[in-house]
Amino acid sequence: MRSCDIVSYGTGVQPAIATRTDAHLADGRDLFYYDPPGTQRVPPPDRRELPPQLDPGQARFDPRTGEWVIVATHRQTRLLLPAADSCPLCPSTPDNLTEVPASEYAVAVFANRFPALAGVGATPIEPDGTLLPVVPAVGRCEVICFDPRHDVRFVDLSVDQVRLVVDAWADRTAALSSRPDVVQVYCFENLGEEIGVTQRHPHGQIYAYPTVAPRTARMLRRAVDYRRAHGTNLFDDLVAIEVAAGERVVAANEAWVAFVPFAAKWPFEVHLYPRVRVPDLPSLGRAERESLSQIYIDVLRRFGGLFDSTPYVAAWHQAPRPGTEGFEESALHLELFTNRRSPTALKYPAGTEAGMDMFSNDVVPEEAAQRLRGLS
Amino acid sequence: MRSCDIVSYGTGVQPAIATRTDAHLADGRDLFYYDPPGTQRVPPPDRRELPPQLDPGQARFDPRTGEWVIVATHRQTRLLLPAADSCPLCPSTPDNLTEVPASEYAVAVFANRFPALAGVGATPIEPDGTLLPVVPAVGRCEVICFDPRHDVRFVDLSVDQVRLVVDAWADRTAALSSRPDVVQVYCFENLGEEIGVTQRHPHGQIYAYPTVAPRTARMLRRAVDYRRAHGTNLFDDLVAIEVAAGERVVAANEAWVAFVPFAAKWPFEVHLYPRVRVPDLPSLGRAERESLSQIYIDVLRRFGGLFDSTPYVAAWHQAPRPGTEGFEESALHLELFTNRRSPTALKYPAGTEAGMDMFSNDVVPEEAAQRLRGLS
Repeated sequence: MRSCDIVSYGTGVQPAIATRTDAHLADGRDLFYYDPPGTQRVPPPDRRELPPQLDPGQARFDPRTGEWVIVATHRQTRLLLPAADSCPLCPSTPDNLTEVPASEYAVAVFANRFPALAGVGATPIEPDGTLLPVVPAVGRCEVICFDPRHDVRFVDLSVDQVRLVVDAWADRTAALSSRPDVVQVYCFENLGEEIGVTQRHPHGQIYAYPTVAPRTARMLRRAVDYRRAHGTNLFDDLVAIEVAAGERVVAANEAWVAFVPFAAKWPFEVHLYPRVRVPDLPSLGRAERESLSQIYIDVLRRFGGLFDSTPYVAAWHQAPRPGTEGFEESALHLELFTNRRSPTALKYPAGTEAGMDMFSNDVVPEEAAQRLRGLS
Repeated sequence: MRSCDIVSYGTGVQPAIATRTDAHLADGRDLFYYDPPGTQRVPPPDRRELPPQLDPGQARFDPRTGEWVIVATHRQTRLLLPAADSCPLCPSTPDNLTEVPASEYAVAVFANRFPALAGVGATPIEPDGTLLPVVPAVGRCEVICFDPRHDVRFVDLSVDQVRLVVDAWADRTAALSSRPDVVQVYCFENLGEEIGVTQRHPHGQIYAYPTVAPRTARMLRRAVDYRRAHGTNLFDDLVAIEVAAGERVVAANEAWVAFVPFAAKWPFEVHLYPRVRVPDLPSLGRAERESLSQIYIDVLRRFGGLFDSTPYVAAWHQAPRPGTEGFEESALHLELFTNRRSPTALKYPAGTEAGMDMFSNDVVPEEAAQRLRGLS
C-alpha cells in the first residue's frame, strides 16, 4: 500500500496527472484512492467484518439475438437509498464504517460488493456446438465515488475535481483493459431515482466486460462497413457533419464538441466527442482532459436546467481491446441522455422500444438542441 | 359500412371466426368493430368535431447503429390517465363522446389519434449516399380496445373474449401487411403505470412498421446463419431444447408451450411459442387460436400473481413480409416480461442496459420459472 503518481496517457515524458494509493477492503476487494499529484496517503485498514465475496453470477448467451445476458443473483440484497448517516460511500466515521475506510478522500474507486460481473477466467465466446452456453460472469464491477460529500451531485463538482475523476476513469480503464479476460471497459453514471439509482451519494460505475457490449459490436461492425464503402471513418464524418450543420450543436470548445444526435432515441440526448478521434480515455492527453472537464460540467449543467429533476445516464463509449473487430474505427465518446420528456412525464422504453428496439422519440432533436443551447 | 364475417387463416373452406364492421371517425381515421360471427352491426356516426389529422413525424436513420428512430413531435399532447367518465376508449355516451362512437362494443380497433407512425409512401431504406437520411414516418399505429369495461384488465377477459382479440390481431396483421409500404406488423400490450401506460382502459397497440424492427432483423440474421451452420431452424431447436429440459417451462397445452428463456433479460420473462412453427398470427388455424386463448390467460394470471402489481409488456413477434431476409426462418411467438423485480423494486434498464444493450438480470431464470409454475 503506497501512493504512486500515475501517468496513463500519451507518450514520452509527461508530468504526473494524479496520485493513486492502492488498498484492500476487509473481504479482499480492491480499493483505490485518487488524489492530486504528489499526495502521500497512508490508507487506514478496513475495520469491518465482512462475509467472504459471493461467487460471481453467470453470463448466458441468447442464441436468438447473439447477445450475452448477465445473470446476477445476489444483487437483490442491495441497500436501497440509505440515509446519509449510514451511507456506504461516505468516508468512514467511528459510527459508520463504510466502503471507504479513510476519514476523507478526493476520489475513491472500489470493487462492488454486489457485482454483476466478478469472475476471473476465460472470455466467453460463442461456442460452436452448444445452443445455450453459460459461463461464469467474468469481469469486474467497480464503484467510483466522485466526491466525499453525500449531498452533492456530479454537476456540483469543480473543474479540478472532474479532472481527477477523468484521470481515475482513464487509469482504471487502462488497468482493467490489461486483464486477459477483459474485452471492454465501460465507465458510466446513472443519476436519479427515476432511472433506478439506489445510492444518493455521488458515484458512478465501471464495468469490465468479458465480451464486446452488444451496442459497441453493432457500431463497430457498421464503422468497418462504412470504411469499406467510403474509405473514411464513420465517426469522423458524423462529427464533421454535425459541426458543419451546427443546428444540433449544444456546446463546444477547442478539443470537444457536444451535439444532440440526428436520430436521438431519448427526449434529451447529447453526444460528446473529442475533435481528434481517440479510442479510449487513457489516450486523451493533458489538454484534452482539461477541456473535457470544462465541457462535461457545462453539458451537465444544461441538462440539469431542463427540469427540476433531470435523471440521466452518462455512458462512456470506449474501444474494446486491440485486435477486436473494428478496434481501429473506434471513437471515444460520451452518450448522455435522460428519460424525462416533460416536467411531469418520463419516457418509458416499453412496447416498441423494449419489445422491438425501435425507439419513438417525442422531442425533435433540433428543438432539444435549441433548448439546451439556451441553458448555460 | 357493413358487417362481414372474416376468415383470415388457413386454407380451404373454413367457418367464419369473427365479424368485422368497418367505420370511420370524424377526422377520417379507420375504425373496426370485431364481434362474434354473424353479428349484424350498424355503426353510428362519430358526432365529434375533430381537427384534421396532423402530419406524420419522421423516421431518422442512425448510421452508427443502423437503426431507424421514429421522431413523433405531436405525441407530447396525449392525455394522461383520464378518469373513467372521460375515457376516450370507453363506448360513447351522450356525455362522453369517445373514439368508439357505438354505445357498446366487443373489440374495437382504430387508428391512433396521436400516432408515432402515420405516413403513406415509400419504405425507408438505407440510402447509399446520405449519412443522415430522413423520411416521413410511414406506417400505422392502431389502438385495440380489448373490452368495453373501463376497469378490467386483459387477464380478466373470458377465453371467448381473448379468442375475439386473437382474431382481431390476425385480421389487422393481414390487412396492414398487404400495404406495400408496411414491412412488419407488431401487436403488443403495455400494462401498468410503472411501465408508462397513459390509458387505464384495457387496450393494446398495433404498429405497422415501414422497416424490419431492429430486434427482428437481428434475430432473423442469426436464424439464417444458424440454418447455414446446422441445417435446421433456430427457433424449432430452441423450443425443442426447452421442452426437453423442462426446468424453465411454465405452462403448456396441446398446441403451445410457455417457458422462461435461458438468457432472460428481465426479472420475469416468458416466451410463448406454438408447437408447430408459423410465421404470424394470421397463419394460426382455429385449433391453435383456441388453445392460444387459454394459455395466454393462464400465463397472464401467473404473471399477475407474482406481485400486487405486475406491470408488463406483451410483445408479439411476427415475420416481416415475404421476401425479407430470414422470412422463411421466422417464428411467431410472444415475449412477455415485467420490469418489476421485487414487491418494492423495479428493474430500470439504465447504465449497462440503455447504454450498452448488455442486460443484467437479478433473477435466475430457473427460479423465475419455478415461481411461475407454482402460481395458477
